[in-house]
Amino acid sequence: MAAFVPVAAVVGARSSTWTGAASPAPPGLPVRAARSARAAVPAGLTMVAAPVGNVAEEKAKSADFETKVFLKEQVHLADTSEYIVRGGRDVMTRLPKAFAGVKSVGVIGWGSQGPAQAQNLRDSFADFGVDAKVTIGLRAGSASEKAAMAQGFSHEDGTLGEMYDVIAKSDMVVLLISDGATALCYKKVLDAMKPGSTLGLSHGFLLGHMDATGDTFRDDVNVILVAPKGMGPSVRRLYVQGKTQNGAGINCSFAVQQDATGTATDLAIGWAVAIGAPFSFQTTLRNEYRSDIYGERGILLGAVHGIVESLYRRYTFQGMSEADAFVHSVESITGPISRTISKRGIKAVYDDLPNDEARATFSKAYAASYKPAFDILIECYEDVECGNEIRSVINANKRYGRLPMGKIDGTRMWVVGKDVRAARVEENIPVDPFTAGVYIATMMAQIDVLMEKGHVLSEIINESVIESVDSLNPYMHARGVAYMVDNCSITAASGSRKWAPRFDYNLTQQAYVAVDEGEDLDMSVVDAFVNHPIHPAVVECAKLRPSVDIALSGSVADDAARSTMMSA
Amino acid sequence: MAAFVPVAAVVGARSSTWTGAASPAPPGLPVRAARSARAAVPAGLTMVAAPVGNVAEEKAKSADFETKVFLKEQVHLADTSEYIVRGGRDVMTRLPKAFAGVKSVGVIGWGSQGPAQAQNLRDSFADFGVDAKVTIGLRAGSASEKAAMAQGFSHEDGTLGEMYDVIAKSDMVVLLISDGATALCYKKVLDAMKPGSTLGLSHGFLLGHMDATGDTFRDDVNVILVAPKGMGPSVRRLYVQGKTQNGAGINCSFAVQQDATGTATDLAIGWAVAIGAPFSFQTTLRNEYRSDIYGERGILLGAVHGIVESLYRRYTFQGMSEADAFVHSVESITGPISRTISKRGIKAVYDDLPNDEARATFSKAYAASYKPAFDILIECYEDVECGNEIRSVINANKRYGRLPMGKIDGTRMWVVGKDVRAARVEENIPVDPFTAGVYIATMMAQIDVLMEKGHVLSEIINESVIESVDSLNPYMHARGVAYMVDNCSITAASGSRKWAPRFDYNLTQQAYVAVDEGEDLDMSVVDAFVNHPIHPAVVECAKLRPSVDIALSGSVADDAARSTMMSA
Repeated sequence: MAAFVPVAAVVGARSSTWTGAASPAPPGLPVRAARSARAAVPAGLTMVAAPVGNVAEEKAKSADFETKVFLKEQVHLADTSEYIVRGGRDVMTRLPKAFAGVKSVGVIGWGSQGPAQAQNLRDSFADFGVDAKVTIGLRAGSASEKAAMAQGFSHEDGTLGEMYDVIAKSDMVVLLISDGATALCYKKVLDAMKPGSTLGLSHGFLLGHMDATGDTFRDDVNVILVAPKGMGPSVRRLYVQGKTQNGAGINCSFAVQQDATGTATDLAIGWAVAIGAPFSFQTTLRNEYRSDIYGERGILLGAVHGIVESLYRRYTFQGMSEADAFVHSVESITGPISRTISKRGIKAVYDDLPNDEARATFSKAYAASYKPAFDILIECYEDVECGNEIRSVINANKRYGRLPMGKIDGTRMWVVGKDVRAARVEENIPVDPFTAGVYIATMMAQIDVLMEKGHVLSEIINESVIESVDSLNPYMHARGVAYMVDNCSITAASGSRKWAPRFDYNLTQQAYVAVDEGEDLDMSVVDAFVNHPIHPAVVECAKLRPSVDIALSGSVADDAARSTMMSA
Repeated sequence: MAAFVPVAAVVGARSSTWTGAASPAPPGLPVRAARSARAAVPAGLTMVAAPVGNVAEEKAKSADFETKVFLKEQVHLADTSEYIVRGGRDVMTRLPKAFAGVKSVGVIGWGSQGPAQAQNLRDSFADFGVDAKVTIGLRAGSASEKAAMAQGFSHEDGTLGEMYDVIAKSDMVVLLISDGATALCYKKVLDAMKPGSTLGLSHGFLLGHMDATGDTFRDDVNVILVAPKGMGPSVRRLYVQGKTQNGAGINCSFAVQQDATGTATDLAIGWAVAIGAPFSFQTTLRNEYRSDIYGERGILLGAVHGIVESLYRRYTFQGMSEADAFVHSVESITGPISRTISKRGIKAVYDDLPNDEARATFSKAYAASYKPAFDILIECYEDVECGNEIRSVINANKRYGRLPMGKIDGTRMWVVGKDVRAARVEENIPVDPFTAGVYIATMMAQIDVLMEKGHVLSEIINESVIESVDSLNPYMHARGVAYMVDNCSITAASGSRKWAPRFDYNLTQQAYVAVDEGEDLDMSVVDAFVNHPIHPAVVECAKLRPSVDIALSGSVADDAARSTMMSA
């Protein structure tokens, strides 16, 4: 319980210059000037698709919650405090109370999250006496029927059916179809639901789409969210491990968008606990979709892809062999850098550098990269915030039938990478200090944008650090970039393709030129990094991470079978 | 007059498979399937920012016009016909009739177009007896005052004033401030205008912004557009040449969005003629901003930048010296390829290739590049169409105070390029067949998207071919990429930075890999290229191009002084 400190003992007090998460001042960026410039925009200029739900509103909504079933605990992260709920087998005894009145849970879709959540819910209900049936709903003739039947769901016992039939009969609908499919059929889904039932989402995308179209939910249903911070296969694998090893599981955020029955909060927390979340923190649907869509375009997928492409090119141009360039870019990030961050926090990478020369190299790379990365990241956040990114995803989904997404890993670099991975000796992979500087500057810039935009630190750390170093980078380490990118949602895969080249160009044109030309670098961003309040907060969060690493299953084929494409 | 053929003699009849500009079928892309998929989207899914003014509506609006002052001529382009108006010194005698009732023209802003249009209007009014005064309107304390005074505008004689004062006194307001500034102050501009006066725009951006915000123009003013197909300095330089050499000038599109007085069409054409347009064709404000914003993100700026970055990298990796790689990528496109297209059309580049081997290389590059380029181009068009791109520009403008646009030409390639340009022997620059294939495939894909979206061929050819090979590529040839990109509007400069890397990645990941891996290429796209109806249409349009090349002025400093930044 070391993670939970008294309210008074505010972690992060060591940062003297930082003014708090609500109004961070990334060094070198005159925030105040920008804000007043923004305030000067005439009121009439508000756009139709301007942000719905401002930073302060969303922050306030995520600050606290009331639970009648679970224990909430206060956790102090930097100079803020949040409430979380701890899960695990002992807490699952409370599930019958959380799910009181829920006799039927319809899990709609069999993509990445569907199989995992459906099986976890079924197991938890059985093990802890929840009197509710889990039924899979698929569209008529779905190719996923067989896969669902292989996991024991069947038409015969009423645990497998046509999606709208299942929705109409369910007290709780867990809608896990793809974003594109959700946008297409959510009206029909809502229409089919029973009054007083609960719509459960694992992604705020639908609200983002409705924000962009001016639509709202019917008010006689609950609308809640549980968003596991890992891919479906991990959610299932760690849950199974968690049956014998308490604490294994994937952390979740939860949110209550609408509470029609007065029980929505405990249903949301109960759902998170039932699928195995070791701990859950609160957010809002709006902040969830913003941080999620932004995060995957940033350091989780898009940015890390753009970074390694740019570094590989740089290193080969400087004379490294192709294999060495791959090791010093991709392998360094997805291997030792990620592991160090995962175990001991971001700053440990810097602290571990062997000598002054390495620290100087890191610092130069960091100082040169921070602003070019920040530039793309804030553009990306604001594109998500104003609805552009969601509109683009919807438009892209309409085009994919005619113009499928292209391959991203046929280039020389990834062909070389395959051989490098095959011949890998894990202990020999170096932490390249230049690579570390670029990567960590981008991660920190991502964090600073989210802090500026008012997200809670749990969410920031999960979407910028934990999901990266514990979930996605290890996948990339094992299988390469395309595997990682394309085993996420279509929203993520298309967004990653869109933003990776932006990071590549900005870093190449600005950061690397600045270093090579010996330009005066703003070293204050490195000081800000060293003293950043996120470091102790990451360490706190690390204490809440699952006790079991997010392992990889045996084969690519095994995972690939779990397509993330629309499968309802 | 060879350009004008009888209605019956439809050019482009040689294309047997093409079904007309209204429903082109780019080979390899199942248009019909895509369309029915789109039609299957439930009506309720319409987005707030979905396209206003559909393809057919905009096409119909641009098809014909009535003029009481000028001669309209029918021109046949492929299997469509359009009406145009020829300009020149002899036609300027009609200006007093076109500007009847207009005693005061206020030119607002002194950026790229402002100095050119203001001086051209003043000269034409003086030379042809138009009884109207041209007054420059600038914001109070504008740094551009001195530049305007140096061109003979002055407070003393009432030809220079505070912008809103000038607007209030003008019968016609020519609003030439930057897009960002326009979005900020258009309400105040509209409020200041006299009833029955005319708002003149040189870019449909404002309508795009109003489409995105749901705003409309007050209905007691005319709203017209004249969009010169070249940068301001060229509009001035060729006008001056046109005084002695009839036919020199920059072509324009014109549009009437609102005709409150019944004279709007002739005012629009008169404005185009008065600033020196050798010929003018009609569009709509909506199609203008769509094709313009899309075009500059495509082959005019963004795509050509991404293409040459990707080719330079490819050629150096294949073992060429850096200088040679620059010659075979940038120099080849901005030199001989552009010149050939300018003089003899797109297909001439292919026809001129010296042997079968070169044609095979071109064809492979073309076949591999067409779809990856089409992919990004249609994404870009649809981002413009749904308002995303304009929202992004507005958001970007708000950030530039804090995060200025970064440099794009500090990388090794552009440093090498500077030396290559300095040592250039024009005649020795080769047409690299691979480079030509990639570049022309992208240009053709841009054309096909615009045809699919229902633009008139004059507009398509101007925004995809003429502006590129006659205006922007020559600038790039003389001064390099950053000069070209950053001497256009902020909208163009930011859009180019955004889209260039997308083309680079798609070509590198898909096209070049396909060529290098010997993948089966869809050669039908090359057949479609050879038989494309655009070729005779480009030749027709080429006959309408200015008789004088768009020359460059002496020095970079000279041009740089004509900043395109907001200067009103």
